[in-house]
Amino acid sequence: MQATDYDIPGDFRHWDGDAAEDHIGPFFYRPVAGGIETAFRPRPHNCNSSGAVHGGVLMTFIDYTLCVAAVAGTDERVVTVSCNSEFIAAARPGALLIGRGEVIRRTGSLVFTRGTIEADGETVLTASAVVKRIRR
Amino acid sequence: MQATDYDIPGDFRHWDGDAAEDHIGPFFYRPVAGGIETAFRPRPHNCNSSGAVHGGVLMTFIDYTLCVAAVAGTDERVVTVSCNSEFIAAARPGALLIGRGEVIRRTGSLVFTRGTIEADGETVLTASAVVKRIRR
Amino acid sequence: MQATDYDIPGDFRHWDGDAAEDHIGPFFYRPVAGGIETAFRPRPHNCNSSGAVHGGVLMTFIDYTLCVAAVAGTDERVVTVSCNSEFIAAARPGALLIGRGEVIRRTGSLVFTRGTIEADGETVLTASAVVKRIRR
Amino acid sequence: MQATDYDIPGDFRHWDGDAAEDHIGPFFYRPVAGGIETAFRPRPHNCNSSGAVHGGVLMTFIDYTLCVAAVAGTDERVVTVSCNSEFIAAARPGALLIGRGEVIRRTGSLVFTRGTIEADGETVLTASAVVKRIRR
Repeated sequence: MQATDYDIPGDFRHWDGDAAEDHIGPFFYRPVAGGIETAFRPRPHNCNSSGAVHGGVLMTFIDYTLCVAAVAGTDERVVTVSCNSEFIAAARPGALLIGRGEVIRRTGSLVFTRGTIEADGETVLTASAVVKRIRR
Repeated sequence: MQATDYDIPGDFRHWDGDAAEDHIGPFFYRPVAGGIETAFRPRPHNCNSSGAVHGGVLMTFIDYTLCVAAVAGTDERVVTVSCNSEFIAAARPGALLIGRGEVIRRTGSLVFTRGTIEADGETVLTASAVVKRIRR
Repeated sequence: MQATDYDIPGDFRHWDGDAAEDHIGPFFYRPVAGGIETAFRPRPHNCNSSGAVHGGVLMTFIDYTLCVAAVAGTDERVVTVSCNSEFIAAARPGALLIGRGEVIRRTGSLVFTRGTIEADGETVLTASAVVKRIRR
Repeated sequence: MQATDYDIPGDFRHWDGDAAEDHIGPFFYRPVAGGIETAFRPRPHNCNSSGAVHGGVLMTFIDYTLCVAAVAGTDERVVTVSCNSEFIAAARPGALLIGRGEVIRRTGSLVFTRGTIEADGETVLTASAVVKRIRR
């Protein structure tokens, strides 16, 4: 999948193999200083009965964002233990949503993360997640 | 949409008009003593790269469950203010997911809710949400 | 410390050795079917400027409750990873606060817990916590 | 109460009238660019059986921090609706704890806040809270 097909800058990359994320998204990511940035262009089928992007869709996007941040470019696998979201403002379909994920601390078994989603520069969601590192 | 088309008992009803919930779900609900029960039969396109139902899909389903519980059969409109989820166990596609939502307290402006998702009788997610009542 | 000195039923027991819990509480516990019950009789020095029991005091009491539930009568040690609380109603000093803690799931490294605090039979707080088991 | 009596820089101020905060703290605050900074010097009676500052004490301090941030120097009154905390690392008695609170958005009825606690420059807690504005 190509970011530019969704009107997302071409340096955002796709992570193949997650059917749910492609079905709801697709979502894209790029490394930035201090963490990760993700991108998503929601469409009408992502919206609730008020015409705003559904809270569940936003939570899926931030879960993706925080897991990508936790993995941090390695091939480590992680699972989300808990995810808390606050819905700050409504996001509209067609807007470019940018997620930002930050690792607060990585312990031997857990990663503490925090993030935001912005729509056209306005914060629409804040979240934190505790992520478990899966040892192989 | 008919619950029975998704191998869900026929007394579960569908709430029309939410494109995202139909795209990710569909989800169904029925009133029960003390709250609401919801149902969802996840499919492969709802799954992550490990073949388990994606956390974002589960959060979408519990958000639906808690909002249906908050609305409680009225035509009131609500928006989610915050939603906290713990991922207790993996859910597999094909399993019958049953959500349960409970209203802890309804104030003039907010509804405090709590819920669970079970897959074949095992708890896979616990959540709480604060929901805002929209006055018309 | 004796529960009866704080007008708490005498079958509630004290857990010695936690200075902060004694300074803010004291708190007491007893096993019940399906989990743990805790008790606390807040006093004026536990209250905020509105004369209600301070939210931080309630969070301390629920953290105690959920850790006692997680430990479940063993000598295992645990630390709280995350704790989410919703403030349902105000609690007044002098009321008998009863905490209830429930273990949703115990994995090899984590315990998922959930609980409530009631004041004179009314729910004043709901909470969930993820607790880490400390291996010795 | 004077910050300097607790080995806290003298430009931190005290907010009088909250018995619980003085009993657990005292806590101090000062305005900074983009929000609020708070200070607390924990003592042995604030610690758990492991000798670390008790999680409930940290949650009380962050609740204070986020409410001070929400009030933002006005005489508005607020109550906490929900408060989510992640315990990132242990804090030791005697360390200077610095809280930081940030208002993400202020609506007509709610304030969305987020914050951290650092001990000697290391993050020990992250939190978010939804706070309700009390109309007089």
